[in-house]
Amino acid sequence: MHLMTLRPRIVIVGGGFGGLETAKALAEKDVDVTLVDQQNHHCFQPLLYQVATAALSPADIAWPIRSILKGQSNTTVLMAEVTGIDTSARTVSASGRQIPYDYLVIATGATHSYFGHDEWQDAAPGLKRIEDATHIRRRTLLAFERAEFSTDEAEKQRLMTFAIVGGGPTGVEMAGAISEVAGRILPADFRHVDPRTARVVLIEAGPRILPAFPEDLSAYAHRSLEDMGVEVMVNTRVTGCDDGGVDLGDRRLETGCTIWAAGVVASPAGKWLQAPTDRAGRIEVRDDLTVPGHQEIFAIGDTASIKQANGTPVPGIAPAAKQMGQHAAAEIIGRLNGKAPTAFTYRHQGDLATIGRKSAIVKLKRTKLTGFPAWLFWSLIHVYFLIGLRYRIGVAWKWAWDYLSVQRGARLITRSVKDEPPTAHKNGASHDAAA
Amino acid sequence: MHLMTLRPRIVIVGGGFGGLETAKALAEKDVDVTLVDQQNHHCFQPLLYQVATAALSPADIAWPIRSILKGQSNTTVLMAEVTGIDTSARTVSASGRQIPYDYLVIATGATHSYFGHDEWQDAAPGLKRIEDATHIRRRTLLAFERAEFSTDEAEKQRLMTFAIVGGGPTGVEMAGAISEVAGRILPADFRHVDPRTARVVLIEAGPRILPAFPEDLSAYAHRSLEDMGVEVMVNTRVTGCDDGGVDLGDRRLETGCTIWAAGVVASPAGKWLQAPTDRAGRIEVRDDLTVPGHQEIFAIGDTASIKQANGTPVPGIAPAAKQMGQHAAAEIIGRLNGKAPTAFTYRHQGDLATIGRKSAIVKLKRTKLTGFPAWLFWSLIHVYFLIGLRYRIGVAWKWAWDYLSVQRGARLITRSVKDEPPTAHKNGASHDAAA
Repeated sequence: MHLMTLRPRIVIVGGGFGGLETAKALAEKDVDVTLVDQQNHHCFQPLLYQVATAALSPADIAWPIRSILKGQSNTTVLMAEVTGIDTSARTVSASGRQIPYDYLVIATGATHSYFGHDEWQDAAPGLKRIEDATHIRRRTLLAFERAEFSTDEAEKQRLMTFAIVGGGPTGVEMAGAISEVAGRILPADFRHVDPRTARVVLIEAGPRILPAFPEDLSAYAHRSLEDMGVEVMVNTRVTGCDDGGVDLGDRRLETGCTIWAAGVVASPAGKWLQAPTDRAGRIEVRDDLTVPGHQEIFAIGDTASIKQANGTPVPGIAPAAKQMGQHAAAEIIGRLNGKAPTAFTYRHQGDLATIGRKSAIVKLKRTKLTGFPAWLFWSLIHVYFLIGLRYRIGVAWKWAWDYLSVQRGARLITRSVKDEPPTAHKNGASHDAAA
Repeated sequence: MHLMTLRPRIVIVGGGFGGLETAKALAEKDVDVTLVDQQNHHCFQPLLYQVATAALSPADIAWPIRSILKGQSNTTVLMAEVTGIDTSARTVSASGRQIPYDYLVIATGATHSYFGHDEWQDAAPGLKRIEDATHIRRRTLLAFERAEFSTDEAEKQRLMTFAIVGGGPTGVEMAGAISEVAGRILPADFRHVDPRTARVVLIEAGPRILPAFPEDLSAYAHRSLEDMGVEVMVNTRVTGCDDGGVDLGDRRLETGCTIWAAGVVASPAGKWLQAPTDRAGRIEVRDDLTVPGHQEIFAIGDTASIKQANGTPVPGIAPAAKQMGQHAAAEIIGRLNGKAPTAFTYRHQGDLATIGRKSAIVKLKRTKLTGFPAWLFWSLIHVYFLIGLRYRIGVAWKWAWDYLSVQRGARLITRSVKDEPPTAHKNGASHDAAA
């Protein structure tokens, strides 16, 4: 069937923002597209923290890739794990099959980096996949359940202490959201602890949070978090993580739940291709986004390392991945039509981060917004970019409801208490898959 | 705090329909109520099959118990696993604590019964908890993913064969829903298999499906399922279950996914109390719902075995559990006020079962409904009984949308393909917890 055709075969590995955009841009073209992902769904990562903090359900922000692309008759979606690439045979190894390509687009994204301390992963899970979000939601809610059940006051206080490591947008969003859940949503539900006494501590190694933003916005976010009761520690490096807390040099913070939002590392695609990579494992692509030595292989999104005209790196955010996807698709079509390679140009549209339920910071080319207007802008942008009308209306409805009622709809702890060891989750590989 | 009070202490074990109703009926009373459940949520079981077939998300039909009861200041909710009852000390052992009671209500429900073949559990999961539903959803959707990926025609056909064991309401609902998902929702998404060729086989050991209904309704459901393409096998006993299929005496049905909807067995509460039980493990309670020999212990819902005035057993359905919960609460308050025990009287309101997306059967005292009017009645009843306005509007919206668009919103496979062994899920205890 697919393999018998004579049309050029384009294989895309990864169904994130970059891979999906590449596939969409090839919709009406005279090529055969195969998109391979080990998940069946595209996840709208910018809203993952809302799943982790029980505002949304997994299905609100994740959609089957094959259903997004079902209208494209030239596109096959395969759920399989890619384990290697044979660049001389021009095939991708995926779950025991060899999938041939004429052009290959690597869009395999990034995962958490523990800076050489992978043993911290179980004690301090990160937030990249739907499963991570439901795992963190469960850990957070279980901490309050255990505090309610415990008869030991010191243990109650430890359980209600939350450390978030990393002061980028994800860390800030998580800190703000957990603080609000504890302070506004949970209090009426508990009898033997007061969730308003929960401590939320945001730990940043650098001198300020949100370093990608201008200093004044960063300072605004810092003050806003503190006004909400979040303890913000800058210039503070985590030197150890275990189930009972985090070590900060010669200090120790006892916690009931630690969340990792600090570093990212690219997928192993660079190793598959033996391509030059930067320190984060991203392939140092040429200006047309191809992998050095392979005119027929593109790397995009968080898998690629490339600089803007002004010398700063293209950031690892969704709009950048989408722009690269569009460029890769256009390059492939261009080559098939005999055109010469063209350089990728990144257009930075701005940076956004929310701080809780009614505040945010926004930096656009000519404008800065803070507070409620920024939050409104953030909300509109995010609802707009959600794929599919059903989701837009559904998410808008849930947000409106939660905003008006100060409730959280998705406060499920899946798995029963007996499936859970008394301290914390022991095995990163068995993250509960929840949706 | 709670344990220091002098008010009568009422402990309820289980937050299903029966336990929750007991707690609600004690809301304004001068007693201390403690509800213990090993889950943090109440699950609206009648709609579990919709989660299993991707129409709804777990959070649409499950709510934190403590949030349902947050307005009752006399009620504590504890998330803990009950492991035993000391009837002489009058304490419940829960996750290492001893919780004292003056009155105890056992509402621990039921789970699947494999009729002595617990080894079938992994190959043929049942549907009782949220985790079961997401596990079955994942198994079902993965079967299609694997069929799309496979290059072997026989294997494709096996993967797209679904066996549902048990012709009660759950089995009928699952068969109808899977058949619709395969026939109406998935076809546009796949390129290398046609989901319309999927086989859905409903296997019933008795002479007819839905034996709790009158024969004509049962026959109507049988015909409707066959019209939808479901193969209905009655008088057919399953003699073996494994990852590749089911044995039916001297025949074998190769399947990609088998679902167990056949038997139920009560929780081990009868053993804790060394009380007389029926064959399904339900405690044979006295007519006031107390456990023989223990005037202070009530057993309700699927944990209790009791006959109606006409000699037939009270059925294991939500309305019966709720009525028993109300009765137990009233009895406790009565005794505290010096009144004598009164007998429980069950009021049967009717039976309902859906058959796919626009048909159902309904048996009320004086009325029978079939087809679309029955489906409409079923929908109204179920939305009405969902707890909380947000959920009612949310679920009604999703149903309306799915009905009009022939879509399914919650088609997530959580966990990536690499976490899954190539044949099937091996360990019942590690059911993916998904919400």
